[in-house]
Amino acid sequence: MAEARRLRRAVWRQVDPEGYERDGLSLTNRVVVLIVALSSLFAILETEPTFDDIAPEFFTRLEFIFAVLFLFEYVIRLWAQGENPRFPGVQGRIRYALTPAAIVDLVAFLPSLVLPFLPGTTNFMLLRIFRLIRILRLARLGRFSLAMRHLSQAVSERREELLLSLMLATFVLVFSASGMYLLEGENDPQAFGSIPRAMWWSVCTLTTVGYGDIYPHTVPGKVLGALTSIAGIGLIAMPTGILAAAFSDAFQRTRRNMKESDADDL
Amino acid sequence: MAEARRLRRAVWRQVDPEGYERDGLSLTNRVVVLIVALSSLFAILETEPTFDDIAPEFFTRLEFIFAVLFLFEYVIRLWAQGENPRFPGVQGRIRYALTPAAIVDLVAFLPSLVLPFLPGTTNFMLLRIFRLIRILRLARLGRFSLAMRHLSQAVSERREELLLSLMLATFVLVFSASGMYLLEGENDPQAFGSIPRAMWWSVCTLTTVGYGDIYPHTVPGKVLGALTSIAGIGLIAMPTGILAAAFSDAFQRTRRNMKESDADDL
Amino acid sequence: MAEARRLRRAVWRQVDPEGYERDGLSLTNRVVVLIVALSSLFAILETEPTFDDIAPEFFTRLEFIFAVLFLFEYVIRLWAQGENPRFPGVQGRIRYALTPAAIVDLVAFLPSLVLPFLPGTTNFMLLRIFRLIRILRLARLGRFSLAMRHLSQAVSERREELLLSLMLATFVLVFSASGMYLLEGENDPQAFGSIPRAMWWSVCTLTTVGYGDIYPHTVPGKVLGALTSIAGIGLIAMPTGILAAAFSDAFQRTRRNMKESDADDL
Amino acid sequence: MAEARRLRRAVWRQVDPEGYERDGLSLTNRVVVLIVALSSLFAILETEPTFDDIAPEFFTRLEFIFAVLFLFEYVIRLWAQGENPRFPGVQGRIRYALTPAAIVDLVAFLPSLVLPFLPGTTNFMLLRIFRLIRILRLARLGRFSLAMRHLSQAVSERREELLLSLMLATFVLVFSASGMYLLEGENDPQAFGSIPRAMWWSVCTLTTVGYGDIYPHTVPGKVLGALTSIAGIGLIAMPTGILAAAFSDAFQRTRRNMKESDADDL
Repeated sequence: MAEARRLRRAVWRQVDPEGYERDGLSLTNRVVVLIVALSSLFAILETEPTFDDIAPEFFTRLEFIFAVLFLFEYVIRLWAQGENPRFPGVQGRIRYALTPAAIVDLVAFLPSLVLPFLPGTTNFMLLRIFRLIRILRLARLGRFSLAMRHLSQAVSERREELLLSLMLATFVLVFSASGMYLLEGENDPQAFGSIPRAMWWSVCTLTTVGYGDIYPHTVPGKVLGALTSIAGIGLIAMPTGILAAAFSDAFQRTRRNMKESDADDL
Repeated sequence: MAEARRLRRAVWRQVDPEGYERDGLSLTNRVVVLIVALSSLFAILETEPTFDDIAPEFFTRLEFIFAVLFLFEYVIRLWAQGENPRFPGVQGRIRYALTPAAIVDLVAFLPSLVLPFLPGTTNFMLLRIFRLIRILRLARLGRFSLAMRHLSQAVSERREELLLSLMLATFVLVFSASGMYLLEGENDPQAFGSIPRAMWWSVCTLTTVGYGDIYPHTVPGKVLGALTSIAGIGLIAMPTGILAAAFSDAFQRTRRNMKESDADDL
Repeated sequence: MAEARRLRRAVWRQVDPEGYERDGLSLTNRVVVLIVALSSLFAILETEPTFDDIAPEFFTRLEFIFAVLFLFEYVIRLWAQGENPRFPGVQGRIRYALTPAAIVDLVAFLPSLVLPFLPGTTNFMLLRIFRLIRILRLARLGRFSLAMRHLSQAVSERREELLLSLMLATFVLVFSASGMYLLEGENDPQAFGSIPRAMWWSVCTLTTVGYGDIYPHTVPGKVLGALTSIAGIGLIAMPTGILAAAFSDAFQRTRRNMKESDADDL
Repeated sequence: MAEARRLRRAVWRQVDPEGYERDGLSLTNRVVVLIVALSSLFAILETEPTFDDIAPEFFTRLEFIFAVLFLFEYVIRLWAQGENPRFPGVQGRIRYALTPAAIVDLVAFLPSLVLPFLPGTTNFMLLRIFRLIRILRLARLGRFSLAMRHLSQAVSERREELLLSLMLATFVLVFSASGMYLLEGENDPQAFGSIPRAMWWSVCTLTTVGYGDIYPHTVPGKVLGALTSIAGIGLIAMPTGILAAAFSDAFQRTRRNMKESDADDL
């Protein structure tokens, strides 16, 4: 019994970043990261008809193997949570299985295990959604990274400022789209015939993407377009400044953290 | 009589951010913000023929209800200004009604109340302008926000620097448009046949929007286009630097303000 | 004689920013700025055939009046330089007339005075160059501005860093254009058939302008195109950082200057 | 013998920046920089058919002369390495000849010496690769520059932060391409029919290049496109902030270095 607990403790330390006492990732989790990256890469490549035509069965079989590996890892992780003080006993495991992270993990491999045994669907959209669900696995890579956690924290601390700049951007967006609807709506109803339609042009211009699928043709429209382009520079300056400061905060936090844990090691 | 004044005082505190003694917005003004946002959203959606065709009467009736609500709010606000020391008596109210903010508020709902009782106009442009006037209501959201007021203050403190960068941008704009008129004017008179025409290309290039509706075709034109693109990076760097500093000032001011009012609460 | 010298001294203080003892511009120079701006505006508008067709003689006559005013101002300024200790006597005035600034001033109005009395040329290019020469007048506005002088000084102090980033940008430009020539040259010889041709695409991509007149069509070309787009962000970051620091320096210098001159006034 | 060693020492100081005791570049290396720049320029111009047709033999002969000069310089440099304490004796020279820098130098001129004596190949791709190899010479200019070495050092110190922002950018890239594949894949299989195909659109949008060769056509696709454009601003802000800080570090380091060596000279 003590043997089993000692094993579970060792496994937990390997599979759960919370339980791992050193910096970085355990060997097990490095393998998991590799498998996650590989399975996502193959999920991306599978969508390309050129590859799928060459080896139609290759991707389906590979995905089944990956799904079995993820099922195995999921069960191990669930079992090892018994060591996590936050999730004690059977109730703790149920609570763990209901955390958003665990649900995303489960959803990302379950369809690949079940689907091959169901009668094939011909619904194109459904097939695509099942394929894309696998790419959700990438979200796990983010959870493993300390720097990513610091980054999301630093960004969320500035959410008010980001909200304000989003609000300001929405105002400029609505006003420039309204103006374009007024000035160009009659000439080009397909592109500027309503404010929601003109908003597509406004977003493309304010973010300086400028696809060139729609653009003003009349002189007043071009004047408004020029003003919108110039306003776009100001709108980009605001979140750039806020985010650059947030990123610099996050990286300093990560470095301090690393130095502290280096000092702890001594 | 004292009863009526006490009521008016309570109403004023609810409707006027100046009279509200706590941080943020009163319950009444939160409802107003919601109605402003909703009525703007419907004003935007109404312009889209797809929606308007499904329910032609829906938007007109909804807008009439919104306009009645805004009329009601306007009268209440005007009456409650009696409590505002800046606008005493009947004369004060007239002065209040003539402030730009109050005029914008009035203009934004009046046409929706009056138009349904007038004979229909078939002038497309006029109809559009009446529709767009409603979107002016969004300006009220800006007035309610403390952060937005700090931001506009921080930007206006740097107006000289922004003016200088605008002047510099105008120089580069005029010189690049003149050069393009010289080099490509004969080949592509539609796009570069005059300096004002070439300016549309210059703005698109200097702001790096680059729709691609017009671009140089000859070798000297492409060399000038390349130089203009590179100059654009420098021109964007200047307002970005100025505005990023202004935004950072504004957010620090808002935070200090909040901390002070938190300290006052103790 | 003393009378004449006192008049010349007073005139010099009005026409030469060096001689003006107060901040900003003298009344005379404000009028000059206005005339420069107006004459440039009309020079820009004249190039547009729509305007020129309505009133063919209007622009020519207006320009002649402007040129006479500039001739008058030029002679006055030359005469008043007798007060400038840097340009004493007749020799000083010849040296003044040979400064680049004075030559640009002269060249910007002389053709407009002489051309109407010459037999008309039908050479389109020559006519255009004469028109554009007038826009050189705008350069005078820059010379009048203290902030602009500080700005050009701050930028020139960082010329080494700007040169280095230009060198780095040139490397990336040459390597991405070479790569595109290798990968897409055979498919699209018009656009990528030589490195100089492919450079037009490289500049458009690295500055994120992206007209869309040419873009890669093959898979390896698109991979290189994606890498070039991402490299462009890095290349834009470098001059943006350098220039933003230079601009911030220049504005601080201007402010300090203004405060000092305010302190001198007390 | 002592005479030969003294000559070798003098030559080494001229050809190797490590051996040169003063700031900047020796006279010999300035000439080398000039030849490198010229030979690269001619290698670029030679690819343009317009130039090559006028003087078909000119570029080939010039390149042969350049290659002979580089061979001469390579031999001299190899011989002079005898003075370099890092590469003593014959073994040291073999080790020097196997450094990546020396291999790049050799590869950049050898084909131009050997090819004219081989039977002509008609393989277009091979010919192009031989032409491009010459442009590798430009890499030597970077090695000569102290500021460039500081810059690459400052960037490599922040490689973790750059890697994290690259990882984040990859996530956003994959998710936006997946979404577009889901929403637009059926309508436009050429552009969005697989995730790898949709990634080309994603890169163009996230870097705000926006060629306009492909863009969403449906309403949900445009909504996702707008969100991707806005996310692009955030993704650009991150490396811009990191790189701007790295560049500022590098320039301060170079300046401190120059001041110290100036102080040493006293």
